Amino acid sequence: MELGMVGLGRMGANMAERIIRGGHRVIGFDPGAAARQAAQAKGIVPAASLAELVAALPVPRAVWLMVPAGKVVDDTIAQLLPLLAPGDLVVDGGNSYYKDSQRRSRELAGHGIAYIDCGTSGGVWGLKEGYSLMIGGDEAAVARLGPVFTALAPAPDRGWGRVGPSGAGHFTKMVHNGIEYGMMQAYAEGFALMERKEEFALDLHQVADIWRDGSVVRSWLLDLTADALGRDARLSSVAPFVEDSGEGRWTVAEAIDLDVSAPVITLSLLERLRSRDKDSFTDKLLATMRNEFGGHALHAAPPATGKPD
Amino acid sequence: MELGMVGLGRMGANMAERIIRGGHRVIGFDPGAAARQAAQAKGIVPAASLAELVAALPVPRAVWLMVPAGKVVDDTIAQLLPLLAPGDLVVDGGNSYYKDSQRRSRELAGHGIAYIDCGTSGGVWGLKEGYSLMIGGDEAAVARLGPVFTALAPAPDRGWGRVGPSGAGHFTKMVHNGIEYGMMQAYAEGFALMERKEEFALDLHQVADIWRDGSVVRSWLLDLTADALGRDARLSSVAPFVEDSGEGRWTVAEAIDLDVSAPVITLSLLERLRSRDKDSFTDKLLATMRNEFGGHALHAAPPATGKPD
Amino acid sequence: MELGMVGLGRMGANMAERIIRGGHRVIGFDPGAAARQAAQAKGIVPAASLAELVAALPVPRAVWLMVPAGKVVDDTIAQLLPLLAPGDLVVDGGNSYYKDSQRRSRELAGHGIAYIDCGTSGGVWGLKEGYSLMIGGDEAAVARLGPVFTALAPAPDRGWGRVGPSGAGHFTKMVHNGIEYGMMQAYAEGFALMERKEEFALDLHQVADIWRDGSVVRSWLLDLTADALGRDARLSSVAPFVEDSGEGRWTVAEAIDLDVSAPVITLSLLERLRSRDKDSFTDKLLATMRNEFGGHALHAAPPATGKPD
Amino acid sequence: MELGMVGLGRMGANMAERIIRGGHRVIGFDPGAAARQAAQAKGIVPAASLAELVAALPVPRAVWLMVPAGKVVDDTIAQLLPLLAPGDLVVDGGNSYYKDSQRRSRELAGHGIAYIDCGTSGGVWGLKEGYSLMIGGDEAAVARLGPVFTALAPAPDRGWGRVGPSGAGHFTKMVHNGIEYGMMQAYAEGFALMERKEEFALDLHQVADIWRDGSVVRSWLLDLTADALGRDARLSSVAPFVEDSGEGRWTVAEAIDLDVSAPVITLSLLERLRSRDKDSFTDKLLATMRNEFGGHALHAAPPATGKPD
Repeated sequence: MELGMVGLGRMGANMAERIIRGGHRVIGFDPGAAARQAAQAKGIVPAASLAELVAALPVPRAVWLMVPAGKVVDDTIAQLLPLLAPGDLVVDGGNSYYKDSQRRSRELAGHGIAYIDCGTSGGVWGLKEGYSLMIGGDEAAVARLGPVFTALAPAPDRGWGRVGPSGAGHFTKMVHNGIEYGMMQAYAEGFALMERKEEFALDLHQVADIWRDGSVVRSWLLDLTADALGRDARLSSVAPFVEDSGEGRWTVAEAIDLDVSAPVITLSLLERLRSRDKDSFTDKLLATMRNEFGGHALHAAPPATGKPD
Repeated sequence: MELGMVGLGRMGANMAERIIRGGHRVIGFDPGAAARQAAQAKGIVPAASLAELVAALPVPRAVWLMVPAGKVVDDTIAQLLPLLAPGDLVVDGGNSYYKDSQRRSRELAGHGIAYIDCGTSGGVWGLKEGYSLMIGGDEAAVARLGPVFTALAPAPDRGWGRVGPSGAGHFTKMVHNGIEYGMMQAYAEGFALMERKEEFALDLHQVADIWRDGSVVRSWLLDLTADALGRDARLSSVAPFVEDSGEGRWTVAEAIDLDVSAPVITLSLLERLRSRDKDSFTDKLLATMRNEFGGHALHAAPPATGKPD
Repeated sequence: MELGMVGLGRMGANMAERIIRGGHRVIGFDPGAAARQAAQAKGIVPAASLAELVAALPVPRAVWLMVPAGKVVDDTIAQLLPLLAPGDLVVDGGNSYYKDSQRRSRELAGHGIAYIDCGTSGGVWGLKEGYSLMIGGDEAAVARLGPVFTALAPAPDRGWGRVGPSGAGHFTKMVHNGIEYGMMQAYAEGFALMERKEEFALDLHQVADIWRDGSVVRSWLLDLTADALGRDARLSSVAPFVEDSGEGRWTVAEAIDLDVSAPVITLSLLERLRSRDKDSFTDKLLATMRNEFGGHALHAAPPATGKPD
Repeated sequence: MELGMVGLGRMGANMAERIIRGGHRVIGFDPGAAARQAAQAKGIVPAASLAELVAALPVPRAVWLMVPAGKVVDDTIAQLLPLLAPGDLVVDGGNSYYKDSQRRSRELAGHGIAYIDCGTSGGVWGLKEGYSLMIGGDEAAVARLGPVFTALAPAPDRGWGRVGPSGAGHFTKMVHNGIEYGMMQAYAEGFALMERKEEFALDLHQVADIWRDGSVVRSWLLDLTADALGRDARLSSVAPFVEDSGEGRWTVAEAIDLDVSAPVITLSLLERLRSRDKDSFTDKLLATMRNEFGGHALHAAPPATGKPD
């Protein structure tokens, strides 16, 4: 079938490429000329504008959005809307907040356009290994796009499925990422503990590698960890600074909203925040209190770094 | 080669069976007659006593212990010691505390006997899929037992290795289990969140199954989770009661001892303790405080259940 | 001065009484006739409607809302608005979300009416001991209401203050309650630990009482705890079930929003959620996973309780 | 009565001074000559050695140890033992591990010497405000020392008591400190949240000061916090580096040992460990994993600081 892909960044371009390998035709648009050019080299038919992309698609159209969550999705939909017609179909394959997807689905339904929220996992490896797709939305619309999902998935009948109505796909992906935070933190803490145990001089790469086969903790994340440790078991070039994207925050908020205690997922998020706070006021006040009641010595703050004259 | 296996419970018998499949001969002892009988059916040569087991082994002997951690290991070693000779070798394949293994290694070294600590992962699936083996101890002794490790491992050159001196094997296994706690808790929290989201009526088995291919959270634990949810996605017959064994506690203690903050592994242990406390004094006191300062209503404790006359 | 008090529940009636003791006149309204009657006995001049309350106040009027946070505040303001005139002043002394207070302040400012958000701490003890008041809003409006704050506070110049612009009062109160959650949890965990230590047969009331003087952990919450433990050191009539109100949730959300890691306040909230989940799916799945990979026995769920025929 | 005080550091000297104010005579020993000299100025009768101290005391003797926990206590007892006689009494007023105190009590009982473990709270403020004393040991021995406890306590009948047999005093003090960790962390997180909320430009000293009267979170720790924030509300000279002493670790270990989930006390300890780890391997591995699976950019570690030639 034919599909329009909006957003030809790392994820969008890779996904388009995999869809093409599956025997489909992809018209692609990206605001960046370089991205459009790179896409063309992968067999994507470049469109110079959203209008051109829409015009190039057979009716009823299917347009896949692979753009940053939030305002960009809304803006893109606003630009697409006048170009589309009843019967067309839009998929959001990014990491949108599921309540946004529910709202967008309702809005597009008012125009006769189906809106599918597709949580997509697999990262930079998806091109090669296939993507895990958690899909929410109208059953007929999902079915119509089946050939594309089949091409993206690791195998035609594995790794994808419609999990529920609008929003269910992005909700499931959100929880997926919350679990991912917790798993990552569990591994990282364990390896940090081994790294600190100087007595045994463990080779962290070797340990990770042993665990890849037969152990209870074997996983794809462990495979990647083993690879990275194989290149530098001390991670000497990496700063202890961990970003987070929205899904972890949403998962924590959702859990509290539903009265579900999810301490490990929650702490995993907080540890990321913590990793970025190099001058914690919490810790300064703790040290101050100890000094106040017990006379315990304070460590002096380093002098503020000023530019030399 | 020939190996004595002491302890023919679920783990010991399975491991002996896999070793035999690898072309080796295993003499087995277990205090339980039924276990000995079942072992015989699997090709294990039964011994009626430790003395008989030792007598049946060629010199230098290799004896593998697969008995409960703690006192049973010490008692077994105490009984074996007068039967063994310098040059013999003992392996502890159970979940012993690594400091115990270091002590035992020192003690047996005084008798000219090598002591290997082998952390073993794989559970009931190890027979079929092979065991992940983290091995600590003298290099020559580990090398001598190579054929047995090769037979136990998932593949001759995968899933096993000597990670360091005495204690390093059980230390590594301890951390492995700490990570396991964290991963399990991360998955469990995520699925609990999806279970609570009634709005989407998610099929938890389907979600787990989708994630098995291509997703970032794919793992062997997820495979097992998917299987279990496939049999009963509501887990309706299971009580919310989670046991823990020693490794989680040791991991938490070790992390604190080394000044490593491991909040996710730690919380995963605490959540297990929590799951078994159905009448938390902490919660009773919190409710009481709220009543004291704010006049917030208390829930009455259910009356103690007495047997009717 | 003269003040209208809307909401004559436990908090509103007590506060009105303390204001009256301070030499002021309070006109009070509550939708419940019983509450109005009880208020009259305390010297509050009852009004049968908001209109009557407003009519009874001298211009420029001052109206204090002491009603449940959320919709009731908005509804009350909507009813008051047509009755008030430019120059009047409204105080929200409840536990409103600070962003709601900011919005309401903007809305009322458009009508020439000042809106003060006053975080109020002290609970049922405030009548006797005075209330701690964290006040946000226009400086002149706060100053005008100074005599009322003075009457409510523990002492004329202690325990109250304008902490910032609109919203700052309720924000500060929100954080206050977050801290309160953490302190309560810290005490409760400590006492639970002592309660479990059967070896020492500690008298928890005695310990709490000793700590009230001279110790680092002395506090008003400890005083209350000691009193409660003095009545029943085993808390035998209390169910382990802890409610939470909005401030804890908002504090957790705000901390994450500002990238502040606040693990103790956060966990204190999660523990309350946990206390109310007697059939945790998380724990059921953990038990199930252990059974899957290790063959560890499951505890059977108790049969659903049915009514006998 | 007459008391020997061993250890004339900040705590020991202050306590001796308060005991003297209570009308008693204190012979003091400290290995440091300066400490002995300073003690003399406070009315303590200095002894040049333990032998001199013991010789100066009337029989039956009472010796109070105020020395660092651990080896120093054992060493001091070993030196004292040959100097003491049956019927004498030793108090350990420091922060010893309660199991050590139980062992020491058994050992000294074999020599006819009573051993009292006295958890002491109050810090540098104890001299002025009195100490909170949690006392474990033989009833008669505790009763004999009543006049000293009375002098140390905030009031003759307040802030001290025998809470149980040997070990119970230090156990209770250990839990006290665990609670202290949790309370401190709760306050520190709350103030950090307010500090980060630039929108309101809160004066943290003002907020702390308001809370000191009438609020639910009022406490002695808050009083100290208010004082410190009054001197520097930004804590600009303090490094975010928080020490911990043994009691927090022991509390966490004890809670796990007794199957009590104490997440807030536990996390409070972990946060202190965290504050001292400026190059967290956990965080480096998390950042690395994100890079592995998602291509997310890494922050480069700063170059190792070398001394210029």
